[in-house]
Amino acid sequence: MPGEFDLIHRYFEAATAARTDVVLGVGDDCALLRPPAERLLAVSTDTLVSGHHFSPDVNPEALGHKALAVNLSDLAAMGVEPAWASLAITLPSADEAWLAAFMRGFSSLADAFGVALVGGDTTAGPLSVTLTVQGFVDAVRSLRRDAACPDDGIYVSGTLGDAGLALRMQQGVLDSPPVPELQARLDRPTPRVQLGLQLREFCRCAIDVSDGLGADLGHVCERSGVGARLELAKIPLSNPVRAYVQATADWSVPLSSGDDYELLFTVPAAQRSVFAGLAAGLATPVTCIGEVVEAGQGIQALAPDGSLIEELEKGYDHFRA
Amino acid sequence: MPGEFDLIHRYFEAATAARTDVVLGVGDDCALLRPPAERLLAVSTDTLVSGHHFSPDVNPEALGHKALAVNLSDLAAMGVEPAWASLAITLPSADEAWLAAFMRGFSSLADAFGVALVGGDTTAGPLSVTLTVQGFVDAVRSLRRDAACPDDGIYVSGTLGDAGLALRMQQGVLDSPPVPELQARLDRPTPRVQLGLQLREFCRCAIDVSDGLGADLGHVCERSGVGARLELAKIPLSNPVRAYVQATADWSVPLSSGDDYELLFTVPAAQRSVFAGLAAGLATPVTCIGEVVEAGQGIQALAPDGSLIEELEKGYDHFRA
Repeated sequence: MPGEFDLIHRYFEAATAARTDVVLGVGDDCALLRPPAERLLAVSTDTLVSGHHFSPDVNPEALGHKALAVNLSDLAAMGVEPAWASLAITLPSADEAWLAAFMRGFSSLADAFGVALVGGDTTAGPLSVTLTVQGFVDAVRSLRRDAACPDDGIYVSGTLGDAGLALRMQQGVLDSPPVPELQARLDRPTPRVQLGLQLREFCRCAIDVSDGLGADLGHVCERSGVGARLELAKIPLSNPVRAYVQATADWSVPLSSGDDYELLFTVPAAQRSVFAGLAAGLATPVTCIGEVVEAGQGIQALAPDGSLIEELEKGYDHFRA
Repeated sequence: MPGEFDLIHRYFEAATAARTDVVLGVGDDCALLRPPAERLLAVSTDTLVSGHHFSPDVNPEALGHKALAVNLSDLAAMGVEPAWASLAITLPSADEAWLAAFMRGFSSLADAFGVALVGGDTTAGPLSVTLTVQGFVDAVRSLRRDAACPDDGIYVSGTLGDAGLALRMQQGVLDSPPVPELQARLDRPTPRVQLGLQLREFCRCAIDVSDGLGADLGHVCERSGVGARLELAKIPLSNPVRAYVQATADWSVPLSSGDDYELLFTVPAAQRSVFAGLAAGLATPVTCIGEVVEAGQGIQALAPDGSLIEELEKGYDHFRA
């Protein structure tokens, strides 16, 4: 069995994409990096733990993709251009085939977004992956959770609930075999990096939907000091999720399940008509699902039957789930 | 039991030291930071795993200190001025008292070195801590592993083997109760940040002794394409370690045990007399223990009895140990 340093050398150094701003990459006590002048550095960290965020028998290539994707999604949510990643991986044993597959998934997505792996740590222990990603954004153009205002339109990209429905199918909760399109949304989410960069022209407020629509919109409302009113009928759903909701009347899949990694953002009232005209040119389809309102009412959602759901902000929570 | 977001809010936001270069700290998808113009950004990541790097019943305040200390030690080893930290912590349960104690240890050291906690992640799972620390260094003044040259003097700071002897005492391997001074070296190491900054005037090559003298000097030799010759009698030892070595003739404690977090560095031949004259003004005592030699001989060590030990670079390895 090879030692720790062999592993790092073999898989991590090879995974480093070429970027001229990486002065010194994997292999010393620190990486040395040259940030661009006049821009802010954005930093985000996410951990995925075996048995909590993924199954112990996960496909390692899919995990390598997903570990980076969920971190890039945080950069996308602030309109950040990705640059560098540091990878801390804890493995029960130095399984070379597993690590090679993990790094294939990781490197493929890193290459697609121009991300260089600049450092990290390899340790023995229960399987988990912690990534810290960094990128650049202009100070006045970042998208923040605390910038929503009453009368802003509330938008989401793509469709919601696909990953949640895939998870239920995978767990055998539903009387239905896994659907490949949904499974791909759960296993290999696409971070909406390009959309995040485009949104900087139209809005100041965004978050990625990782905990569920209700919970993530709740974070925006709390930090912005506002409320929200949604119309469930407007929430964009894929055909399988629409069929599931129609058959069961169970809205928790699109409203409360996380892991879709779509962007949720608000567009100021004055910009909404311009934005609507340009929406067709965006990297990902977007849909208006409601409006920001004054604080005090939390998140209210109008159901298709005309009833009003209160306090939609209750969502997935790692220690409660 | 409080949820994840309550925990983050309560303990992480409060731990953020005031730095004017933190534009947006804990609480959004990313932290937004303003790196200084014209300097390089140094980034380092280290993971500590329960049962591997520390005992499951570790004192959480000491763990909070040590998790940051071992990361700051990586910055010190490159002559970097510390600035920011991102903390990913995985906990079996949301134990508030444990987390409060951990953050006391963390924050106390962060304050001492002007480090702001800018973000991170809290997840449920087997106990582990991954920290990513960042700081600044001038491009031409960084200390690197690949910059040792033949005839350089090889130096270490402080004393070696203290943490290793404490670990053996703690594990009951020795017929001796724990010694508080040694235990403090194991539990609450002092990162040699100030020394690293001072060394930038005299040398270009350093590493921190985290894996053991032989292994870490081996990394320097490998990356610099050189060998080394040491004199064991010159290695600085505390009184308990000296007594242990004299009683047992077991040099593995100062040579192979990690966790001392002293700095190992080389001083070019032309600088050695100037350096010797100024050494008294350094933040930590330093001792010359040998010389860099041409590649080909690995690391040789002259024992006090006149015998020559070959291949001292074999050291602690997480997957072999």
